[in-house]
Amino acid sequence: MNAIEVIDKKRRKEELTKEEIKYIFEGFLNGTVENYQMSALLMAIVLNGMTDEEVYALTDVFINSGDVLDLSNISGIKVDKHSTGGIGDKTTLVVAPIVASLGIKVCKMSGRGLGYTGGTIDKLESIPGFRVSLSEDEIIKQVNEIGLAITSQTKNLVPLDKVVYALRDVTGTVESIPLIASSIMSKKIASGADKIVIDIKVGSGALIKTLEDARHLSALMINIGKKYNREVRTLITDMNTPLGKAIGNSLEVIEAVSILKGRGKDTYLYNVCVELASNLVSMALNESLEDARKMVVENINNGQAYDKFMEFVKYQGGEVSKLKVSDKTMIVRSEKNGKITDIDALKVGMLSASLGSQCEREGDLIDYNVGVVLHKNIGDLVNEGDALCTVYLGTKEPAFNPLECFKIETF
Amino acid sequence: MNAIEVIDKKRRKEELTKEEIKYIFEGFLNGTVENYQMSALLMAIVLNGMTDEEVYALTDVFINSGDVLDLSNISGIKVDKHSTGGIGDKTTLVVAPIVASLGIKVCKMSGRGLGYTGGTIDKLESIPGFRVSLSEDEIIKQVNEIGLAITSQTKNLVPLDKVVYALRDVTGTVESIPLIASSIMSKKIASGADKIVIDIKVGSGALIKTLEDARHLSALMINIGKKYNREVRTLITDMNTPLGKAIGNSLEVIEAVSILKGRGKDTYLYNVCVELASNLVSMALNESLEDARKMVVENINNGQAYDKFMEFVKYQGGEVSKLKVSDKTMIVRSEKNGKITDIDALKVGMLSASLGSQCEREGDLIDYNVGVVLHKNIGDLVNEGDALCTVYLGTKEPAFNPLECFKIETF
Repeated sequence: MNAIEVIDKKRRKEELTKEEIKYIFEGFLNGTVENYQMSALLMAIVLNGMTDEEVYALTDVFINSGDVLDLSNISGIKVDKHSTGGIGDKTTLVVAPIVASLGIKVCKMSGRGLGYTGGTIDKLESIPGFRVSLSEDEIIKQVNEIGLAITSQTKNLVPLDKVVYALRDVTGTVESIPLIASSIMSKKIASGADKIVIDIKVGSGALIKTLEDARHLSALMINIGKKYNREVRTLITDMNTPLGKAIGNSLEVIEAVSILKGRGKDTYLYNVCVELASNLVSMALNESLEDARKMVVENINNGQAYDKFMEFVKYQGGEVSKLKVSDKTMIVRSEKNGKITDIDALKVGMLSASLGSQCEREGDLIDYNVGVVLHKNIGDLVNEGDALCTVYLGTKEPAFNPLECFKIETF
Repeated sequence: MNAIEVIDKKRRKEELTKEEIKYIFEGFLNGTVENYQMSALLMAIVLNGMTDEEVYALTDVFINSGDVLDLSNISGIKVDKHSTGGIGDKTTLVVAPIVASLGIKVCKMSGRGLGYTGGTIDKLESIPGFRVSLSEDEIIKQVNEIGLAITSQTKNLVPLDKVVYALRDVTGTVESIPLIASSIMSKKIASGADKIVIDIKVGSGALIKTLEDARHLSALMINIGKKYNREVRTLITDMNTPLGKAIGNSLEVIEAVSILKGRGKDTYLYNVCVELASNLVSMALNESLEDARKMVVENINNGQAYDKFMEFVKYQGGEVSKLKVSDKTMIVRSEKNGKITDIDALKVGMLSASLGSQCEREGDLIDYNVGVVLHKNIGDLVNEGDALCTVYLGTKEPAFNPLECFKIETF
């Protein structure tokens, strides 16, 4: 077997065997397969696809490339939640405490922002004092004591995914359902949870652009879960416009807190959080989705979800009262009368990133206190001079005029 | 513009602009585009194809990546001949002297063997004393004096093709009609000839496996030629079985000489040589193909083609009389009675290469005196014990039993 033969086979759209997948991906990790060979294979996978059996084999190679978290010292069902990534997505900060407040163990590893998409770890780090790096022992102790821990990914969890993703990022091979499914599911399975809900974001601001792709990804992830005895549910949610009003690290924590306080009901953000939490509760407690939903809403209303959030942040060293946002703001106003027909999620993400809210390249310094708060929704009527959003500035100038995020049609 | 955007565009099967093609391929040559990005793009090209306009743009970038030979100091029409590569293909050694013997200027750069496919330069080097590296001045002087020169490619002719080909070779991206067309035509155009005949080999022992691909490649190369005011004709010839009886460097020179001496008439090798030569003569002298064919056959019969070969070899320092073949031979005999239904070109090439007849990897030493001579053709009836071929051995053992090259069916 050699790398060229395996690439050739995939180029001819033939199914790779488990052994071939193991050979070429493990070879890439240990250096016997060159990065230019891996990128050619990845492009062939993007264009020719993978069979389900190939995806299962690849996921297995990914999982076995590093450590697998052993959560057996935590009693009861452990749940986890994942989002395929979107602009303004702070749902983890809301969902995890809701679920934990119902006595369900939440043990979650989160990532940093990538490109224009924020990361939960960056958001949590905007809380002064918050420790994002927990050891395996600390995670287990914390979940046993308060039912909830969120930590950055331990170093040796699916190391193969790290190097493959880094290569995909610079070779135009990110957009592949089989590769996305293996990447996400290998990390979820290695993280040890029993029940997993996955929020598949679809739209212009997301990696997945079409409902068809989202459904394919959903089916694939559920099936991978079955192979490892993990119950997986998926939600397919909109990412054409940002999720919620706030984009930027500390701004998003503040919005998450307000949702936990029961504000923002009937917003899309609130509804997505409730649905994600309800699915986890339903799976963990073996309740109907309807009953689970009632429990979730009750624990928002009675303050227990909020209390759990505060307990969790305090346990990991954070002081919510010290959260800061930039005091250098700029209000962006409409230049005409009309109706807002679009708020471009990707554009808003780029705007916030350009202010320094996340790493555009590895090693960039994050400015936790910058970002954007939207004041209008799609469909709103606006007059000339009405405030569309507030931009929280740091040391960097916005990369473009914030008005470009809005499409306003005059009648 | 950046490399990822260009790769993404090709992945989505959109047409690249001239500027994008120039940006990414020139960037690869000068190091601003990484090899893992180029290999991803190449795989996207292999799978999504290229439009004719993209191929013209790519060919232009290839040509302009290095020097272009100036043959204006050679009077009259200059012709060139190319083969897409096959096992036992020694046609250049036959065609070039035939054409030159009719007063037409032949100025040809040839390559070394690659993989299992021999190269004209290796074959010529098997003639003791033969100089394969001529300077531009030497080439011009020689063609002006005797009408024929064959030299290895000068160092700076289409350097981009060298690096792209080396990457294609190790990333499963060799089989692409647009990439093959640009690679061949850029070198032919940079070599300066006015009229070009291209022998497209099709079959199990060739890069091109189907007639459809061969016709596509043919049309593309003819059209590229038009862009540069070069008349191009193509022949599509069989490469399921080796061309001729001899495979191996000095063995092939000996066979070429025998064809020039008028032996081997009615063989496929003879006919292919006559057709290639006739097309060049027809283009250069503006004669009908039929008249050109008569002139070609006459100059074989009257010995002028052979004399031109001897003059050419002597001019470049070679001594045909000192040609050697290994005296360590092994006759391979049929183990049963039956009919030969296949002689696998690729297998024969692998057999000869395994004996040392060519570089399997860059830097391998060539044994010029080893190879295989076939004694039977497809369709021949054989009895147990009949000689199928003679293997000329050097210091290396054959990689497999030479009987594997033959398929013999019993009745």
